[in-house]
Amino acid sequence: MYTQFPLASPIVQKYGGTSVGNVERIKSVAARIARQARAGHTQLAIVVSAQSGETNRLVDLMYQVNPQASGPAYDMAVAAGEQVSVALMAAAIEAEGLKAAPFLAYKLGIFTDQFHAKARIQSINTDGIKEAWRVGAVAVIAGFQGVTADMELTTLGRGGSDTSAVALAVALNAAFCEINTDVDGVFTADPRVVPKARLIERMDYETAHEMASLGSKVLHPRCVELGAKWKMPIVVRNTFTADEHQRTIIMPTTEITAIEALLVSGVTLDRHIARITIEGLRKDSSVISEVFAKLGALGVNVDIIVHDRPDSTLSEMRLGFTVARADLETARKAINSLVTENGYKGVRAEAEAGISKVSVVGVGMHSNSGVAGRTFAALTKQGIDIHMISTSEIKISCVVNEKDADRAMRALHDEFVK
Amino acid sequence: MYTQFPLASPIVQKYGGTSVGNVERIKSVAARIARQARAGHTQLAIVVSAQSGETNRLVDLMYQVNPQASGPAYDMAVAAGEQVSVALMAAAIEAEGLKAAPFLAYKLGIFTDQFHAKARIQSINTDGIKEAWRVGAVAVIAGFQGVTADMELTTLGRGGSDTSAVALAVALNAAFCEINTDVDGVFTADPRVVPKARLIERMDYETAHEMASLGSKVLHPRCVELGAKWKMPIVVRNTFTADEHQRTIIMPTTEITAIEALLVSGVTLDRHIARITIEGLRKDSSVISEVFAKLGALGVNVDIIVHDRPDSTLSEMRLGFTVARADLETARKAINSLVTENGYKGVRAEAEAGISKVSVVGVGMHSNSGVAGRTFAALTKQGIDIHMISTSEIKISCVVNEKDADRAMRALHDEFVK
Repeated sequence: MYTQFPLASPIVQKYGGTSVGNVERIKSVAARIARQARAGHTQLAIVVSAQSGETNRLVDLMYQVNPQASGPAYDMAVAAGEQVSVALMAAAIEAEGLKAAPFLAYKLGIFTDQFHAKARIQSINTDGIKEAWRVGAVAVIAGFQGVTADMELTTLGRGGSDTSAVALAVALNAAFCEINTDVDGVFTADPRVVPKARLIERMDYETAHEMASLGSKVLHPRCVELGAKWKMPIVVRNTFTADEHQRTIIMPTTEITAIEALLVSGVTLDRHIARITIEGLRKDSSVISEVFAKLGALGVNVDIIVHDRPDSTLSEMRLGFTVARADLETARKAINSLVTENGYKGVRAEAEAGISKVSVVGVGMHSNSGVAGRTFAALTKQGIDIHMISTSEIKISCVVNEKDADRAMRALHDEFVK
Repeated sequence: MYTQFPLASPIVQKYGGTSVGNVERIKSVAARIARQARAGHTQLAIVVSAQSGETNRLVDLMYQVNPQASGPAYDMAVAAGEQVSVALMAAAIEAEGLKAAPFLAYKLGIFTDQFHAKARIQSINTDGIKEAWRVGAVAVIAGFQGVTADMELTTLGRGGSDTSAVALAVALNAAFCEINTDVDGVFTADPRVVPKARLIERMDYETAHEMASLGSKVLHPRCVELGAKWKMPIVVRNTFTADEHQRTIIMPTTEITAIEALLVSGVTLDRHIARITIEGLRKDSSVISEVFAKLGALGVNVDIIVHDRPDSTLSEMRLGFTVARADLETARKAINSLVTENGYKGVRAEAEAGISKVSVVGVGMHSNSGVAGRTFAALTKQGIDIHMISTSEIKISCVVNEKDADRAMRALHDEFVK
């Protein structure tokens, strides 16, 4: 299931940055596509990312020219990476003796809202692809980019090419969307940290979404959201693995048999977080809401929030929360200036960078109250301090010292996944 | 004249690959544009090329993937260079505190025919630029690229950004088109070879066209053709020269006073040529027409042709002609296979790469029959062998050994330009 595309149906395959990272890889992908075409598949739609490193190069250039760059100019620069990949892939397919039809977003009609650098797809016109198929060509489509109704170039943000591919699979009514990347699929934990980690064969959208949000880098959360919304199965596989059964299928829960609905699907790690603690808050203080309003206005996402008042007779409170490490300086300055401007006496903010977040994820958890206790026990048995805890129906996240992060991940994997 | 743009009129300025070659240069160009805007110019249209080296990088990548790459895929890859430049320039202008409106060809509507990699502009829709001006923005436009009526990306071939700029100046009814490059203008000869070479202040389109065709790299012949067709003055200046009077103006002959209509305007050198000689041809042979038909089909341009039969009683003839050095192997193989396939006995083709073409150019020449004699005398006095000669109304070209090329150029510059 989900390994063979039916012959007379649309095939949507996305190839990521490392899969098109150099000339040899592009040729190798083109050869795979050619084999599919020769096997009789006549409805091929190939979505490509920028060559690995290219988007970062363009972003760096842009910020050197203008550190505040945004809007149309920013998107026009970064979208160039996908443009080159599409062109190279189309030419490589032509070198295989096939016809290829390269499409940029404006040409096909991948329409988005007007929020530059984080645009959302609103509709896709598939006429161009169908016309390409009619004349026997493989359609090659730029991921990551779109256009507004005014034909202004936009980009979808990080992981945008995965989202493009899933949206296209929905628009073309494909049986599933294949995401070809540089790993074999989604693992129960990062195999570089947890050697015992194993490939997850099937998982539901909710779990995949939590894992993506909590630091598993295989898929972007928005791509999973879109798959869930349209019930489009997403097959994650390694571009350079011949074994078609080595992959993860992300699909509706109803299609996953009970035995596969594991208590815990996986363990994830996000190293790149930081914590801010604000002390000296009065209980009637408006500082808390002001802090979150200001951080929101600056685009700083606050993740775990811990707000506790150790003793109800005390008038002082503490507030702790985590942010992405890249946002720490912005957040710290914003809070300090807020405190200074408003003359909040006794309020102090402390920033701490050396922490990581380890999470246990699985749909089975919400019906099993023992998971929290087992999580804490597994970590404390290893002598690992837990700084913060956050839970949802299908995950438990623990903030630990960065130096303990790898050990924490292995301990939780041993406890729940084996 | 042609150094100051009138305030309430469109300004079209093109900045070449070296002018946008790195972050500092882009910022410096943006600063110049900002000064013009602050001086009250409200109708600025800036055309940019790809950063120097970028187009070659993209072409190389493309040919590595598919040595026969052409058509839409080829154009899509190489047009990405201008896309990045437009985005960076717009962001740099925004960093100066101005508004900028970046335009790709599809967005503005720069329509061309469908001949990929050598498309010709058919029309330009200037509505987008005028709307940008209305809201107080500087319009920044990608040179080199266009779209077909089907919105398929095209490129204009080498020197295409100059052509884009002149076409835009015509469409916007600008007073003149300013081409900003890395030299001060058009010189009487390449100053690196002929130290005495001097800047030509004014020249007519015909002379500029011959000089461009004969190897002067400052402007592309097609850009000059377009200027001539629409009588659009072209001002060539150095991006990084503050002196506004240091430049070459290419303009209609009628506007150039008699005293400026020199006998010879300049001396050019094309090092990158090669010669093929075919011997053993019978006088009734159809080989000659077959050779040129085959080379034409392969896209090989034949330049100078010398066809002589030393003695009318002899039945054997010789045919010599020059091609671009890059085409030599293609041409040699084509001729040999033609000879073999058709069994032309006794026909031999010899290829020779070590030659260059030196040309003397000037509208004054056609009324002065002494120029040819002085050309030959100047070269033979230096002991330089002349292999081939080709003349037109306004130029004389001599093919010499590559090792003699620089000396030949200096000798001709001394003879005619001083």
